[in-house]
Amino acid sequence: MPFLAFSLWRRTISANVPAMSDNRETVSPPVAVMEWVGQAATGHLRLLDQTQLPAQTVYIDCRDAEAVWQAIRRLSVRGAPALGVAGAYGMVVASQSVSSAADPLADVAAAAEYLCGSRPTAVNLAWAVRRVLRRARQTISNVFDDVRDAMLDEARIIHAEDAGMCLAIGQHAAPLIANCTGVLTHCNAGALATAGIGTATAGMYVAHARGAEFTVYCDETRPLLQGSRLTAWELMHSGIDAVVITDSMAAQVMKDRAVQMVITGADRIAANGDAANKIGTYGLAISAAHHGIPFYVAAPYSTFDLSLDSGSGIPIEQRGAEEITAGFGRRTAPKGVKTYSPAFDVTPAELIRAIITDRGIIEPVTAENICEVLSRS
Amino acid sequence: MPFLAFSLWRRTISANVPAMSDNRETVSPPVAVMEWVGQAATGHLRLLDQTQLPAQTVYIDCRDAEAVWQAIRRLSVRGAPALGVAGAYGMVVASQSVSSAADPLADVAAAAEYLCGSRPTAVNLAWAVRRVLRRARQTISNVFDDVRDAMLDEARIIHAEDAGMCLAIGQHAAPLIANCTGVLTHCNAGALATAGIGTATAGMYVAHARGAEFTVYCDETRPLLQGSRLTAWELMHSGIDAVVITDSMAAQVMKDRAVQMVITGADRIAANGDAANKIGTYGLAISAAHHGIPFYVAAPYSTFDLSLDSGSGIPIEQRGAEEITAGFGRRTAPKGVKTYSPAFDVTPAELIRAIITDRGIIEPVTAENICEVLSRS
Repeated sequence: MPFLAFSLWRRTISANVPAMSDNRETVSPPVAVMEWVGQAATGHLRLLDQTQLPAQTVYIDCRDAEAVWQAIRRLSVRGAPALGVAGAYGMVVASQSVSSAADPLADVAAAAEYLCGSRPTAVNLAWAVRRVLRRARQTISNVFDDVRDAMLDEARIIHAEDAGMCLAIGQHAAPLIANCTGVLTHCNAGALATAGIGTATAGMYVAHARGAEFTVYCDETRPLLQGSRLTAWELMHSGIDAVVITDSMAAQVMKDRAVQMVITGADRIAANGDAANKIGTYGLAISAAHHGIPFYVAAPYSTFDLSLDSGSGIPIEQRGAEEITAGFGRRTAPKGVKTYSPAFDVTPAELIRAIITDRGIIEPVTAENICEVLSRS
Repeated sequence: MPFLAFSLWRRTISANVPAMSDNRETVSPPVAVMEWVGQAATGHLRLLDQTQLPAQTVYIDCRDAEAVWQAIRRLSVRGAPALGVAGAYGMVVASQSVSSAADPLADVAAAAEYLCGSRPTAVNLAWAVRRVLRRARQTISNVFDDVRDAMLDEARIIHAEDAGMCLAIGQHAAPLIANCTGVLTHCNAGALATAGIGTATAGMYVAHARGAEFTVYCDETRPLLQGSRLTAWELMHSGIDAVVITDSMAAQVMKDRAVQMVITGADRIAANGDAANKIGTYGLAISAAHHGIPFYVAAPYSTFDLSLDSGSGIPIEQRGAEEITAGFGRRTAPKGVKTYSPAFDVTPAELIRAIITDRGIIEPVTAENICEVLSRS
């Protein structure tokens, strides 16, 4: 069942909106990144294989723990929130083969460790997997089917929480987006990275659902091209007007006054508001400031790392040379040439007009305002 | 004879340095982009096939006018100055087949029009071809061999003038480069685009020849990757330390203080100093200003278009979508996605610390200073 019409996959997040959203607004993600198909005992996890995008829309049905492990390992599913949800459903898949064991909970615990090993550095993955394990242990029943049903319930709650967090961000960001004829974004902080409507893209989807018309300029985002491969793809599928540019064209788009705001996601935000995100974000923020165009970051509360006073404490991972010198299937730089390839950069708080979270908008970006907004329930 | 060791091809530009250079300094280009092989009557034009870089170092021997036309047409040779020199030598090649004609000069004139048609918008090409034609017409001799010898002489003068212009730029720029541990450049305003040591690269080659040690960070320069394919290649071959980065990494390199200056070429400079250059240059200049790093433009006097009051009069060519969506041999964006692809942008004079010309350094960049420096002989 590799190809499936998008319409079949559309789902709304209305039922899952947690209390932090003020209303019952529903906004469909452009595509279901993942979903649980069938019952807990016999069903399976269906994942969009993102490694095939944008050329092909292929789904993977994961019917055992190894299939989930492999899908995570080869980046068929990516993005911190999406990884957590995939891991949670993966636990239910794993539980299907342990029901006849002498100590099924011990086997479930082993499956949890196994799944976490698919991407050992993914904090969200481990967090979600262990949350499902805890729920299994807390379920008092002699019938393992009841335990498994509880595990699926927990996975669905995690899924719904993520979708609700995205929607809440989107509801805060939408009025800003709706005021623009053009918006610029970088990398993919989109539906494809979450189990909902994304973070940076969330306001776009909500504003679009409310009838706003605007164009999104997508930086292609070298070296791995998440902007042109993923963001442009998901926006197109939702009917939002998307235009792909090379990263080097962003300043010209701003000079043209084709955009009135820039919005990106973040990988980690320090207590003072300095935000680490995909390489290129910092230069974009500088250009936005030069043109007097507001630069926004959209991220859930879980992205904040208040143990870090400032962005200088965020380590910057260096990537391999091949992504720059031969990233497209053929060599585009001399053999043996040196490269410098930081995966992230840090945008200082003073270049960020506001941080849009699921708990509210932090503006201006100060340590005090961050504490105040994050402490809202 | 497709492969040839570089050492065989190295040539110095010492003998050709025109009066504007103060001394007899010699600096070798990293590779001969083109040269005339043999006598006027029987020789040929040898060109480096730049479409094969950086994977292969292949030379093309052009033995008739059509071969020259084809080489220019398929971009085996590129860059305004290099095109002029190739066209000039192409005239000599063309003259070899007309010596027995009733009116060889008429055939030479027809060859000139033919060669100009290989790239009709290349002003330098037409200018150089017609200059060789004029020299042929001015040569008073009944023996066509004498006319052809004069044509080769004229082509060599054009070649030497270009090489001398590059060297003069390099001599002005070298002291600035020598003060740096790192320099950042964009696109290829290098030896490969000229018949000498380039424009933006000229100061690097001169400083390197004088013993300075520094690293050049080369923006890969999307969409066509002239930085990673060409600039990194020629710098590596000259022994200069070259590091390739994606365009989106430049701001981080500046934040790291890994570079103390940025230097690029220009396609056209207005009377007030606004400079059009490859897309991405403008954003680079903004980032440099933000970090207090001086941004320089290197260009010969012929790049100035004093008929334009400012950069707003420079038309910006739009390129096709495929260069962005499938520029590396495979699709990297969704089918049918919109793109916006300006080939150039304009950097305003106020972001340019100085313009380094063959006639001297224009600093600060004002209309008055441009007039003053360009009027030097």
